[in-house]
Amino acid sequence: MPIVGMVGGGQLARMTAQAAIGLGATFRVLAGSAAESAALVTHDVAIGSHLSLPDVAAFAASCDVVTFDHEHVPAAVLTALESSGVLVRPGSGALRFTHDKLAMRDGLTALGVPCPRYAPVSSAAEVESFRGGQWPVVLKAVSGGYDGKGVWVCSSSAEVAEVLIEAVGHGIALLAEEFVPFRRELAALVARSPSGQGAAYPVVQTVQVDGICREVIAPAPGLNPAVAESAQAMGLRIAASLGVTGLLAVELFETAAGGLLVNELAMRPHNSGHWTIEGARTSQFEQHLRAVLDLPLGSCAPASPGGSTVMTNLLGGTDPDIYDRYIHVMAADPAVKVHFYGKEARLGRKIGHVTIVGSAGDDVAAIRDRARRAASYLRWGTEDGD
Amino acid sequence: MPIVGMVGGGQLARMTAQAAIGLGATFRVLAGSAAESAALVTHDVAIGSHLSLPDVAAFAASCDVVTFDHEHVPAAVLTALESSGVLVRPGSGALRFTHDKLAMRDGLTALGVPCPRYAPVSSAAEVESFRGGQWPVVLKAVSGGYDGKGVWVCSSSAEVAEVLIEAVGHGIALLAEEFVPFRRELAALVARSPSGQGAAYPVVQTVQVDGICREVIAPAPGLNPAVAESAQAMGLRIAASLGVTGLLAVELFETAAGGLLVNELAMRPHNSGHWTIEGARTSQFEQHLRAVLDLPLGSCAPASPGGSTVMTNLLGGTDPDIYDRYIHVMAADPAVKVHFYGKEARLGRKIGHVTIVGSAGDDVAAIRDRARRAASYLRWGTEDGD
Repeated sequence: MPIVGMVGGGQLARMTAQAAIGLGATFRVLAGSAAESAALVTHDVAIGSHLSLPDVAAFAASCDVVTFDHEHVPAAVLTALESSGVLVRPGSGALRFTHDKLAMRDGLTALGVPCPRYAPVSSAAEVESFRGGQWPVVLKAVSGGYDGKGVWVCSSSAEVAEVLIEAVGHGIALLAEEFVPFRRELAALVARSPSGQGAAYPVVQTVQVDGICREVIAPAPGLNPAVAESAQAMGLRIAASLGVTGLLAVELFETAAGGLLVNELAMRPHNSGHWTIEGARTSQFEQHLRAVLDLPLGSCAPASPGGSTVMTNLLGGTDPDIYDRYIHVMAADPAVKVHFYGKEARLGRKIGHVTIVGSAGDDVAAIRDRARRAASYLRWGTEDGD
Repeated sequence: MPIVGMVGGGQLARMTAQAAIGLGATFRVLAGSAAESAALVTHDVAIGSHLSLPDVAAFAASCDVVTFDHEHVPAAVLTALESSGVLVRPGSGALRFTHDKLAMRDGLTALGVPCPRYAPVSSAAEVESFRGGQWPVVLKAVSGGYDGKGVWVCSSSAEVAEVLIEAVGHGIALLAEEFVPFRRELAALVARSPSGQGAAYPVVQTVQVDGICREVIAPAPGLNPAVAESAQAMGLRIAASLGVTGLLAVELFETAAGGLLVNELAMRPHNSGHWTIEGARTSQFEQHLRAVLDLPLGSCAPASPGGSTVMTNLLGGTDPDIYDRYIHVMAADPAVKVHFYGKEARLGRKIGHVTIVGSAGDDVAAIRDRARRAASYLRWGTEDGD
């Protein structure tokens, strides 16, 4: 069996380690420290920095293929690995579209993929000209943002000025985007192998609060089947055109008129796909491994045909001693699946997630409610929290 | 989170390690060598002998609770651990019924649980008297048998004599049992927690060849619902009466008249429960961890309501280089789930299993056929092998 190395020791690597066991692939992780989420459970852990070429190259030397649990490995490291013959999946050519949101917007636009209107900006005058009298306007760091960090929704010139000063002070390039008054957010998760095989999961609805994903409903309730199909096709087309190998998550806005605009791309297992562990025939983590190993891709069909799956993220509350609350949640709902990431429960930190798989005919609102109650109890000790 | 230690580094520990990751429990394994199935994938591995009290006690000292992937830890080791305050689950009081088939038969008979007629035997005359003119007669080692080892179906006095000589030569106590002309074999898998909570999985059909489990069909096709319920109730009653904590697998004969007789007991995750990884809301491995940690038990409901799940064991063939055949199987059936145990493919050795989860209304024969074809191709490179 080939050896897959994943750079990054977070929860995505942790859940990939779990999938690798069944698949029979040998799995290694490069973690920043032995206390990281994946380092706590993976058999074969190397400690080093994802920013250091020597660290990453030494790690890669023991692997047949290298992949990632985040997008923070510098482009120079990726290209140096590739030059030395390492199989890097996804490769630097694809990953640059996650490093550089301007390149991503330009690339998608060249493909004819609908995006919010955008422009690079570096001054108040440019923002003023871009927004054309409309508030709010969205400013984004071209590089380095995630989980709502590096994204500012500005509703006044004073807010714009503050972001500009902050960005200029840190040497951060900015992008302005139109604020999309979306009906809801969707995500299309697809996989693509080096051989060019593609597979698309059912399109999901994602619910974000303060830029952090809180809930995923699979499939997206009431989504027009033609729109769902077009989102899947768009995901597969982007993956093929940008040369993605592994998973590609396309975060989408569904507009008031029912159209789709691409918000963000991620080229790795994604929070919007955690539901697949129990909810799909092939989990996104297994699928990512199959794709980067160039194995035939697995079925993306739902595990409970006709049923919905709801995933709710578990954020840390104020009491880090979660165990008693865990027992309560297990007793209250024997079918709830809680996944812990081995992280200390700090306020607002993603420390796990909760999944409920429904059966055909179950009320989706009731499933959402069960998942929300479990996550709320784990966080706050009450089912009525957030 | 508490620390669970599992003694034994086989595939059951390997799959338990996988379940522990999601559950968030810290999991340790005591393996005989670093090359064992679970030792290859578990983060926290101790190397030592399950026969050695110093090795097991040192391991147990770092765990909150100790459990097992096999029944081969000597009773003296178990009781010494218990005397020193270690939480041993299941405990020595329950495990003695798996160490000693005569105690098991006596214990079950005292509970009124139907068993094949049996008697301890140590001479040809005793076997002759026991069999009352009937052939074949079954001889079993009272201790130490598994996977068909230690079980002899004898059809002549010469065969009986051979077993007796072999057994006497090795100091093995024997049990004679009536040969049951069963219609088929079933298994009832239940869990019981130290608090006394019980949970029962759907009753499955198992297909054995040469004493080795080859196929499991969940639920058992066409099983009379009253018989299924009585098998589940029997499992729960045995678990409670014998003081089992963790899983209990009850292997059953369904007689020609539709009655049930207990064949064997196992107090750990069991081959007849591998289907639960994908086929049930809670896998047997997670359930065993929940039970030994005295956490509330998880739902045993099928993951695909109304659908059947088929698990086929993967045995080694003559060509150990399985990877190309693996690719073929994945390509041929994107919904097949292959689980490898990290073992070298030697002829006839259990090296993994294959699971197919069907949907409501699917033909069970077709699902069996898909699983069999996948396992056959992995073993022999042809779909028409065994």
